[in-house]
Amino acid sequence: MFKNFVLIAAASGALAASAAAGRAADPQEAVTTFSLENGMQVVVVEDHRAPVLQHMVWYRVGSADEPVGSSGVAHFLEHLMFKDTDNMKSGELSATVAANGGQDNAFTSYDYTAYFQRVAADRLGLMMKMESDRMTHLRLTEGDIATERDVILEERNMRTENNPRALFSEQMNAAQYLNHRYGVPVIGWKHEMEELDRADALSFYHTYYAPNNAILVVSGDVTPDEVRTLAETYYGVIPANPDLPPRIRSQEPPQRAARRLEFRDARVAQAYVNRSYLAQERDPGAQREAAALYLLSEILGGGQTSYLAEKLQFDQKIAVYTGAFYNGTTLDDTTFDLVVVPAEGVSLDAAEAALDETLRSFLRDGVDPEQLDRIKLQLRASQIYERDDVAGIANRYGRALAVGLTVEDVQAWPDLLQAVTGDDILAAARTLLRREDSVTGRLMRYEEVTQ
Amino acid sequence: MFKNFVLIAAASGALAASAAAGRAADPQEAVTTFSLENGMQVVVVEDHRAPVLQHMVWYRVGSADEPVGSSGVAHFLEHLMFKDTDNMKSGELSATVAANGGQDNAFTSYDYTAYFQRVAADRLGLMMKMESDRMTHLRLTEGDIATERDVILEERNMRTENNPRALFSEQMNAAQYLNHRYGVPVIGWKHEMEELDRADALSFYHTYYAPNNAILVVSGDVTPDEVRTLAETYYGVIPANPDLPPRIRSQEPPQRAARRLEFRDARVAQAYVNRSYLAQERDPGAQREAAALYLLSEILGGGQTSYLAEKLQFDQKIAVYTGAFYNGTTLDDTTFDLVVVPAEGVSLDAAEAALDETLRSFLRDGVDPEQLDRIKLQLRASQIYERDDVAGIANRYGRALAVGLTVEDVQAWPDLLQAVTGDDILAAARTLLRREDSVTGRLMRYEEVTQ
Repeated sequence: MFKNFVLIAAASGALAASAAAGRAADPQEAVTTFSLENGMQVVVVEDHRAPVLQHMVWYRVGSADEPVGSSGVAHFLEHLMFKDTDNMKSGELSATVAANGGQDNAFTSYDYTAYFQRVAADRLGLMMKMESDRMTHLRLTEGDIATERDVILEERNMRTENNPRALFSEQMNAAQYLNHRYGVPVIGWKHEMEELDRADALSFYHTYYAPNNAILVVSGDVTPDEVRTLAETYYGVIPANPDLPPRIRSQEPPQRAARRLEFRDARVAQAYVNRSYLAQERDPGAQREAAALYLLSEILGGGQTSYLAEKLQFDQKIAVYTGAFYNGTTLDDTTFDLVVVPAEGVSLDAAEAALDETLRSFLRDGVDPEQLDRIKLQLRASQIYERDDVAGIANRYGRALAVGLTVEDVQAWPDLLQAVTGDDILAAARTLLRREDSVTGRLMRYEEVTQ
Repeated sequence: MFKNFVLIAAASGALAASAAAGRAADPQEAVTTFSLENGMQVVVVEDHRAPVLQHMVWYRVGSADEPVGSSGVAHFLEHLMFKDTDNMKSGELSATVAANGGQDNAFTSYDYTAYFQRVAADRLGLMMKMESDRMTHLRLTEGDIATERDVILEERNMRTENNPRALFSEQMNAAQYLNHRYGVPVIGWKHEMEELDRADALSFYHTYYAPNNAILVVSGDVTPDEVRTLAETYYGVIPANPDLPPRIRSQEPPQRAARRLEFRDARVAQAYVNRSYLAQERDPGAQREAAALYLLSEILGGGQTSYLAEKLQFDQKIAVYTGAFYNGTTLDDTTFDLVVVPAEGVSLDAAEAALDETLRSFLRDGVDPEQLDRIKLQLRASQIYERDDVAGIANRYGRALAVGLTVEDVQAWPDLLQAVTGDDILAAARTLLRREDSVTGRLMRYEEVTQ
């Protein structure tokens, strides 16, 4: 399975009740939502252009919900979900999907774990039969545990231990979060992964895998009524877990000291500077600041015409690459990241000083209205293109609902982005660029060590 | 109650069984140990020179054992332990101790919580009666909770929020530990303290306050047989908690990036540099490296004749104060701290550069044998003086046992220190002074902000 370690996290707050079925407001996204009696949320996105569909189950649990000392168990369980159940043999689900001409996979992030299949539209019942089976009937043998633990450790070796940028990113996150679990990597700390056992996996499974902690998303050639009938048949019979714990996480204390770190590794081909700030995420009914931050990331570092690129790459020729990254679809405070890769012969000190000077000049200059209009136009265009990607739409709703946003929040987001003004962006930048909330990291080759 | 936030923590590993009573080896410390049938450890330190004694109960639980999101609950419970029980009114224990001419108090650290009384020797039974009563019969009203939560919040205000050095120290610890709970302050993060409630306190109490998680230490004018008889009467009747969880904590992953932080506060009168390294603690049966680190701290920064003082204060006149701090009596990895307070007109950059250059020259020069001999002689002398302080002896044993060391470890420690060689110290310094394990912090006044 590929694992999509989205380096993001999302808005706390209760899920808005969507018990009453209702057709979504936006006529261009045919989204219907309702809930089953056991509390399982359902989102249906109709698209009848081709006889295929995507079936997803999102659990509102991710690595940031793991017990202390058991980092990686959310992702470990994701792997184990492909093993024996009372009714299926290990690997049978994926083999059945493939035999039916489909594809399946799963991914884990800080805030959610999701399973999905893409199949012909008439196979929806079969998908639900298998997915609902592993929601409650997972069997785990000690042999599965030992085998799959080796697999996730090898995955960590491949993706993290052998990748200085991934290791650097882990250390940046750990420094960014003083108290919140986003400081712990999704895949887990190696020494804790090595200790994960059957009891850890089963405890996590029995606590969090239940219909009242799940969101069903079906997109494609299907009607809401068809989905409802099948969902009631397969998922509706599973009892809610009455002991599902409230989703309460340790929050950040005030961050009072700017941090810096240097990561040195002989395998680094290209040194760079990464500045990260703690940042507001999208909250239900309160997404304006996140919208402004999203546009700020586009304006500062969203490509070759961005402010950082113009100043540092083209005017001053200090950098060969610049970028800004923000993803607000998280349950709790997220990060806003800036990256500067210095040009040959430019020191990291000089690159960082230029970054800071450029941020100051941006705060003085303000937002170029033409650039903002251009970005908004591109956004509008890409949102229209996105409507052709039903898998993307399903992901968008599933992710948002998994982090506590509502269907209304998802549908309000494009217009909120269009309504952001240059002053909003500048105000968001002033709030964001607080030294005390920042970590400045340098990824360096070993030979650059000066002492 | 004063709260002794020892910035230390201790050796993991099982406590050596001390079920069989045995007179300790060192003839000059009259220490006897045994265990009650319910698992409560007992340490008796005889000293018959005055008809007084100290009675202590140490629980093997501290702030680093708290549930995530409930930081401060160990210390909160310590406060609440002076409230109503089934048999005593709020404040009655301390009033009774005072009426009997004694004193009482309590303290909480990362690794333990301890309660003690100093009284006339014939009051031991009364002390045990009251202490054993609150081990099991604590009653907590919502009124107690609200009142005492205000008290601990005010304590945090006074000790931490109003003290830039304390805030700086909190941020240093949070940056030092990527995963371990030592990164969270003993008193708690303010936003989590505000949420502590009766259920949090009672859950912590019922989980951890039990004879099989406690160590009784009695020092003074008492015999082991007297202690045993009374302890069996008062503590021996309390059943062990069969659900006491194993003491497993989230450990540190490899630290791969040197960190830096700047803490700026308008109230700072004197800026300084603090360098902290993750350091080995004393482990049961394996205390040699900790002994070498302890002597390293004395040699580098143990006073006016130390290496840092000589180089930075007297030769180069760069600093007005230097210091090195290490306390290895912790359950898990501890820290080794260096501090340089620059002289007037010397920048923090210059002070830090001088610190690094001095550490390099120390590694080149090695240990001055005369200085080492002088320090060992002082240590031996202070250890002999310490024998006159029965409260100090009780603390020494209680703390060591609470972090997993044995009576044998405590008694072996002075000779281990004497056996450390200059080469041992240099080897320990080379292992310790690993940039990736370090945090370099600067405490600065606001006006020193350059941007």
